[in-house]
Amino acid sequence: MYNLVSLENGLENVQGFFCGATNVGMRTNPANSGVSDIDGDVAFIRSEVPCDISAVFTSNTFQAAPIKHFQKYPKNFQTDFVLINAKNANAMTGEKGIEDIDTIMSTLSSKQAVLNPVMSSTGVIGYRLPINKVTSAFDTLDFNAKNSHLTARAIMTTDSFKKELAYKVELEDGSSFNIAAICKGAGMINPAMATMLCFVITDAAVPKADMDTLLSNASEQSFNRISVDGDTSTNDTVMLLANKTSGNYHKQAFQEALDKIMFELAMLILRDGEGANKLVTFEVKGAKSLQEAQTASRALSNSLLVKTALFGEDPNWGRIASTIGASGVVCDDETLTIHYDDLLIYSSEFRELDKEREDKAYAVMKQDAFRVTCNLGLGDATYTSYGCDLSYEYVKINAEYRT
Amino acid sequence: MYNLVSLENGLENVQGFFCGATNVGMRTNPANSGVSDIDGDVAFIRSEVPCDISAVFTSNTFQAAPIKHFQKYPKNFQTDFVLINAKNANAMTGEKGIEDIDTIMSTLSSKQAVLNPVMSSTGVIGYRLPINKVTSAFDTLDFNAKNSHLTARAIMTTDSFKKELAYKVELEDGSSFNIAAICKGAGMINPAMATMLCFVITDAAVPKADMDTLLSNASEQSFNRISVDGDTSTNDTVMLLANKTSGNYHKQAFQEALDKIMFELAMLILRDGEGANKLVTFEVKGAKSLQEAQTASRALSNSLLVKTALFGEDPNWGRIASTIGASGVVCDDETLTIHYDDLLIYSSEFRELDKEREDKAYAVMKQDAFRVTCNLGLGDATYTSYGCDLSYEYVKINAEYRT
Repeated sequence: MYNLVSLENGLENVQGFFCGATNVGMRTNPANSGVSDIDGDVAFIRSEVPCDISAVFTSNTFQAAPIKHFQKYPKNFQTDFVLINAKNANAMTGEKGIEDIDTIMSTLSSKQAVLNPVMSSTGVIGYRLPINKVTSAFDTLDFNAKNSHLTARAIMTTDSFKKELAYKVELEDGSSFNIAAICKGAGMINPAMATMLCFVITDAAVPKADMDTLLSNASEQSFNRISVDGDTSTNDTVMLLANKTSGNYHKQAFQEALDKIMFELAMLILRDGEGANKLVTFEVKGAKSLQEAQTASRALSNSLLVKTALFGEDPNWGRIASTIGASGVVCDDETLTIHYDDLLIYSSEFRELDKEREDKAYAVMKQDAFRVTCNLGLGDATYTSYGCDLSYEYVKINAEYRT
Repeated sequence: MYNLVSLENGLENVQGFFCGATNVGMRTNPANSGVSDIDGDVAFIRSEVPCDISAVFTSNTFQAAPIKHFQKYPKNFQTDFVLINAKNANAMTGEKGIEDIDTIMSTLSSKQAVLNPVMSSTGVIGYRLPINKVTSAFDTLDFNAKNSHLTARAIMTTDSFKKELAYKVELEDGSSFNIAAICKGAGMINPAMATMLCFVITDAAVPKADMDTLLSNASEQSFNRISVDGDTSTNDTVMLLANKTSGNYHKQAFQEALDKIMFELAMLILRDGEGANKLVTFEVKGAKSLQEAQTASRALSNSLLVKTALFGEDPNWGRIASTIGASGVVCDDETLTIHYDDLLIYSSEFRELDKEREDKAYAVMKQDAFRVTCNLGLGDATYTSYGCDLSYEYVKINAEYRT
């Protein structure tokens, strides 16, 4: 029907887009970024023609200034420029925070023609943006650059590696379009999307009318299903920009490509969970309703006791059961079963682990990725979420971040 | 009106009660208990006359076998014997787990006359009780002992110190009664009471009709307001046993004494939070409803990012604000204020910390106990909960517990 081809060099593959970054000295302590060679802190993504744009933002009541600034544009506005900075969230900065963005964009427009520019920020909450530092970027940025690696690195905070992906979608009629994305995020990730930024660009001729649904479908299958620590930030943003330059489009193919790119990025975020070593899939089956399956699945991916047991590689199914029982969903220890990968580890006829099965369970847990499946045995609803373990390193990173 | 006098030696002060413990070898790895001199694993509390009993149990759907066993007695039953074991929760053990308790109690009654004996267990989930080990305790236990320290130590799991308190309540007419309690709990503590056991005994002549209300009032002000890690166990239990031996009672004085003893024990649990170093009071004021104040306050005491910032002694109010914003309560950054003790650290006119104020904030956070007050500025409702920091030690304890 159609074919997805993975491409190197992320954003650079999408026709009519430019991207780059520069260093204006926002990173006072580069060690906090997790990598030593961060060479940017202000980045941009630009299209040579106006784009339709869709966005999904944080559910946090205290939305950051860039989100409020975005929402002041009329519905269905077009844009050709996204400015992104690291190290300062421009959150809890009040009206002044929004005015600061206007000031920055006004300076930008004196250097480069832009249409309805939008901004996205990540970093520490509660400080005004250093306007002069940010605008000094416009003296050195090459607005005709195509440097995806640099852009992906410049938006990192506690990330330990950059996250960029690109696909070419080859349609049956021989036509094609491209889709690419960068994202950042390592800690504070929660179902309901937390401190993560994701920018997806495409040259597909996506009708504006389709974009919100496409993006919310893909978000629900990806960023809304991952949890590092159960917290939710003020700045989370997923943006989809479509400049239609390829002239080609196929709705189902586009949805699948968008789902795939966003799911893979979500898994990269989890792999980069602060101090995390294991990627664990929590599948809850047999629930009475989707809501109950979701509640139980998310409770598992958020539980500190489950996370520390994963880190300790301890096949302690009691913590799994206890967390489901505490989540408030309807459940029954007579109908419940728990599997680690394909290994049955709990059922009502089989409550205690013998030595052989315990050894097998240890082996499953030693892997860097595995699945925990809880079948409540009460209905047909299933929900899957994704989590990681909690290590000493998480505490260290989050005790030391900022200072 | 009445006078509370603090007493040494916990349970020993209450007329007509006996208590003690013995070691039957349940603690295969005493190092996990946090103390090296644990000299018991099976404990009892006994009254020479039948007691009225009230209990509050975990909200976890998977209630442990001892809780189900308790609930099989008729309403308003009386008892004179509580048996407690550490290291095995007797949870997720099905009907067999309940039958095991009956077997144990039947052996007990051949050694000591007991009326409707109840049991309470704490430890690892998912293993049948070693019946022979538990009943071997009856060969060595002295049922006429009064040894509160030993009893309080025997019920410990990851606790690093025993928790016992006693008060004499002197009434205006010269009469008096005694109230004493022991409890255990260090991790897995959550609003809604998790892996904690608390046994309160009194010789006050409390009418059975008052007991449930007295106990639920005291629970709401104490164990329901503390959080170590947001998890909720299968075994949590608070029991109040009244043998009326003193013949004296004053309802208000009794409620105050019960409130005080349970609040102080709750604070001891928090002080002993696994790897915790700081006791933090989270007061949310100015909420639109009590429910909203409670939601925001509990979100703060449960947030990993708040807890790690406390451990790092980082006056990062952004994490406080972000957590309130993520909790789903109605809030507004224009009306919000945040104080650390009496130090204003955020208001809409005052968003960035200057050096002087930041230094003061560091000083507040270096204390081993302080208060975070968030005034939402939107209503009159207030709720206070209590939490602690999250350290490397928490991760270590919970990665290694069990194995």
